[in-house]
Amino acid sequence: MSIAPALVRTLAGIFGPALATDEPSRIAYAYDNSRRHALPDAVVFPTEHAQVEALVRACREHRTPLVARGRGSNTTGASVPIEGGVVASFERMNRILRIDPDDRLAVVEPGVLNGDLQRALAPHGFFWPPDPSSAPWCSIGGNLACNAAGPRAVKYGTPRENTLGLRAVAGTGEGFRCGTHTSKGATGYDLTRLLIGAEGTLALITEATLKLTPKPTEVRTLRATFRDVESAAHAVARIMAQPVTPCALEFIDEVALKLAHDHAPEAGIPLAGALLMIEVDGEPAVLPAAVEAVSRAARGEGLEELRVARDAAETQALWAARKALSPAQRTIAPDKINEDVVVPVSRLPALIAGIRRLAARHDVLVVTFGHAGNGNLHVNLLPRDAAERERAHACLAELFALVVALEGTLSGEHGIGLAKRPFMPLALEPATLGLMRAVKHAFDPDGILNPGKLLP
Amino acid sequence: MSIAPALVRTLAGIFGPALATDEPSRIAYAYDNSRRHALPDAVVFPTEHAQVEALVRACREHRTPLVARGRGSNTTGASVPIEGGVVASFERMNRILRIDPDDRLAVVEPGVLNGDLQRALAPHGFFWPPDPSSAPWCSIGGNLACNAAGPRAVKYGTPRENTLGLRAVAGTGEGFRCGTHTSKGATGYDLTRLLIGAEGTLALITEATLKLTPKPTEVRTLRATFRDVESAAHAVARIMAQPVTPCALEFIDEVALKLAHDHAPEAGIPLAGALLMIEVDGEPAVLPAAVEAVSRAARGEGLEELRVARDAAETQALWAARKALSPAQRTIAPDKINEDVVVPVSRLPALIAGIRRLAARHDVLVVTFGHAGNGNLHVNLLPRDAAERERAHACLAELFALVVALEGTLSGEHGIGLAKRPFMPLALEPATLGLMRAVKHAFDPDGILNPGKLLP
Ligand SMILES: Cc1cc2nc3c(=O)[nH]c(=O)nc-3n(C[C@H](O)[C@H](O)[C@H](O)COP(=O)(O)OP(=O)(O)OC[C@H]3O[C@@H](n4cnc5c(N)ncnc54)[C@H](O)[C@@H]3O)c2cc1C
Ligand SMILES: Cc1cc2nc3c(=O)[nH]c(=O)nc-3n(C[C@H](O)[C@H](O)[C@H](O)COP(=O)(O)OP(=O)(O)OC[C@H]3O[C@@H](n4cnc5c(N)ncnc54)[C@H](O)[C@@H]3O)c2cc1C
Repeated sequence: MSIAPALVRTLAGIFGPALATDEPSRIAYAYDNSRRHALPDAVVFPTEHAQVEALVRACREHRTPLVARGRGSNTTGASVPIEGGVVASFERMNRILRIDPDDRLAVVEPGVLNGDLQRALAPHGFFWPPDPSSAPWCSIGGNLACNAAGPRAVKYGTPRENTLGLRAVAGTGEGFRCGTHTSKGATGYDLTRLLIGAEGTLALITEATLKLTPKPTEVRTLRATFRDVESAAHAVARIMAQPVTPCALEFIDEVALKLAHDHAPEAGIPLAGALLMIEVDGEPAVLPAAVEAVSRAARGEGLEELRVARDAAETQALWAARKALSPAQRTIAPDKINEDVVVPVSRLPALIAGIRRLAARHDVLVVTFGHAGNGNLHVNLLPRDAAERERAHACLAELFALVVALEGTLSGEHGIGLAKRPFMPLALEPATLGLMRAVKHAFDPDGILNPGKLLP
Repeated sequence: MSIAPALVRTLAGIFGPALATDEPSRIAYAYDNSRRHALPDAVVFPTEHAQVEALVRACREHRTPLVARGRGSNTTGASVPIEGGVVASFERMNRILRIDPDDRLAVVEPGVLNGDLQRALAPHGFFWPPDPSSAPWCSIGGNLACNAAGPRAVKYGTPRENTLGLRAVAGTGEGFRCGTHTSKGATGYDLTRLLIGAEGTLALITEATLKLTPKPTEVRTLRATFRDVESAAHAVARIMAQPVTPCALEFIDEVALKLAHDHAPEAGIPLAGALLMIEVDGEPAVLPAAVEAVSRAARGEGLEELRVARDAAETQALWAARKALSPAQRTIAPDKINEDVVVPVSRLPALIAGIRRLAARHDVLVVTFGHAGNGNLHVNLLPRDAAERERAHACLAELFALVVALEGTLSGEHGIGLAKRPFMPLALEPATLGLMRAVKHAFDPDGILNPGKLLP
């Protein structure tokens, strides 16, 4: 153990049995979904805001690193305690404190799982828009800290558009509230959004006031196949230029389709130059017109087939390609590299053409799919052996440079963490990084919160 | 002149004829819509980002206050140079640099007028949601710096939900870019939203990348009158709890209706306990069902009459009450006090009841109206003489305390400026204010940008 015995005693005083320093516990909190690994010296399980204040003050006093953890599902190493110290796992601070349909808000503790919140909201006719595929096992605190999202963001936005206020403890050890209980506010600086996406480097979030959205009554699913990526990308632009915004507009490229098709030959997955999965939601009375508006926009040069699911079974069949994608990739490349770059929608064809060139030049298997309506593509490099893995890493730097040249940025929803930290200077000017460092210093003057993450 | 002659020489070098130090110019930039007044020592008119960098560096070197100005239409004194120094008026930096429908974005200089932008976007089928009534004569820079909004915010959000990225110059004199050209991003801290609503106290905005929304093809107007405020407020909550969100949900109280009615007896303005103006937008095919959904929600205990306009003339007739309101108030109280407090929607009845009690106790005429869907009410105190004006000011502090007790906040869209600065400690904890001060220090270490505003 490298942390001060006095700190351990203080933590024991604050947390009692909710402090763990045994090796098995430390190992259990040493990793996240990034495959990085580093042992913390202690793990604590706060259940109250006051404990978190005492925790941060104690760590600050001893200049000891403190890493917040939701459920460790992030892909960038953001919750790995690379400098040791204390991990604060919020998994037991998981009460839904209030659901208030009249005010379209919910107040939750950070450890509430996204999926549990959605289930609790459903009977009230509401949902919280951020919908990462990891929803059943990732926490609201983690969603906020990563600005995590999913398909619905194209219509309903990310955590930054769906959070009213926060309670938190800054790296100074001071607890504070920011934001509002209202859907509008112009009372001082927006600290709420500053904490969202900060990956636990500015403050630990202890409570969140979330903006709720009424649940649309029905959803209709469409699947469109295209001759090539260009025509699919043009369809995306056309769909996004008309007033009926779909609640999902997902893209799958040719290579990914082939992979999914070979993995699940019985599923009827089409082979095509590109595929769009589109969902449109709304009230039963308005839905047919909405589907028609989106279909009209989808049609055009290069469209091969447009199918609208008529029932639940057909909907499921249409999603087969998307569903088969993850297992198919895992089968051929267990340690895939999963990036989530984002470019303006009109640059999708250039991005995908560029990726193909890079894949060919570096001789790596690359599939792309993702949230086309936001221009947010998951670029998965699938190295099948160690040599290809090395080539894949060389390819990455060029991928990020390409993305930035196309006016895009490094991450749409997964964040920076450890994995993309070295590339930050590609995306952000020195002056911008300098200001971010100054903000970090304002919240966390001793640099104890999640050191080594996000900022290079 | 109290600024250093060396600074004036430097400014002359940067700005040439776009520097004014003559008294008439200084007087012209001494005030805003708040009735406050303070002479600047110099006024400059930047047209390029590089000039703004040089300007801030020069002011910093001389520790001279620097106040950004759009069109001075704000109501809080936010652009009054209370400590003298230099006013930077962005009125000549007003080019629309790019309109990009495929990527749903526009890039503009800060001096572009909101109304001019909307006009330029219309042929592309898009709009930028923030719609203050001052749109024809206020600037995008001012809109961003105030987080200004209007009726449409209930459906489409405020500048914080409708801005992708910014270019700016911090109080350090460093130019920087923040945010993205994409509708999603998780690359570092959200400096974009931090500048929005900061009232020019952190940085001067020199360029903005705005998120565009496709223009709905049609709008339908509804007017509902209610027996009393409570039943109108319940209708608001019901409307906001169903999935079809109106694009305007405006409230007018009994006193305001009476005032408007007496001011324009010919306009057919109804007398009622409360009135809601509702607008629903969408595609022609979906609109009837949407209007029906909202009407259904509006109906209930206390509804007296619900009218749906069938054509443009009827729409105009329904809006008559709202239109007559401003002139009616000005007639009886030329120096009204205009607040824009905000509470959770379910607290509107309690707020309005509380305001009535305060008005009676302090013996001041108060009318309330505003953006009920956001819980954002304009509380206008209408003092008819000096004594009533004094009583009105006493009433204000209690109004803010009431709002905070109802989980609301000081401002929904007008901001803090000078006017509400003393009340900030009512709304924000000392720790929150402390962090805001630390952020201010990070961006503007010498405190030259808009000193004396926003933070107490
Ligand atoms: C199978 C799978 C699918 C996924 N799909 C998606 C997807 O579709 N979209 C997407 O965006 N992401 C996705 N992810 C990534 C991941 O689930 C999200 O980033 C999620 O938000 C992480 O939540 P978590 O609770 O696991 O947080 P963790 O991984 O534990 O932590 C993530 C970051 O948040 C910080 N943090 C956690 N709690 C707090 C707190 N209370 N205060 C301050 N900081 C805190 C941590 O320090 C860390 O920096 C997926 C992951 C997996 C494994
Ligand atoms: C009749 C009338 C109706 C109104 N209706 C509404 C309404 O419906 N909703 C609403 O929200 N407001 C309304 N307002 C208030 C006002 O119009 C808005 O606040 C508007 O955003 C101010 O824009 P402006 O260009 O006049 O900015 P100014 O008043 O000049 O400045 C406002 C603030 O922005 C800062 N600023 C300006 N430009 C920059 C820049 N480039 N960089 C950094 N900071 C900058 C200034 O320093 C100041 O703090 C109304 C005002 C009037 C007179």
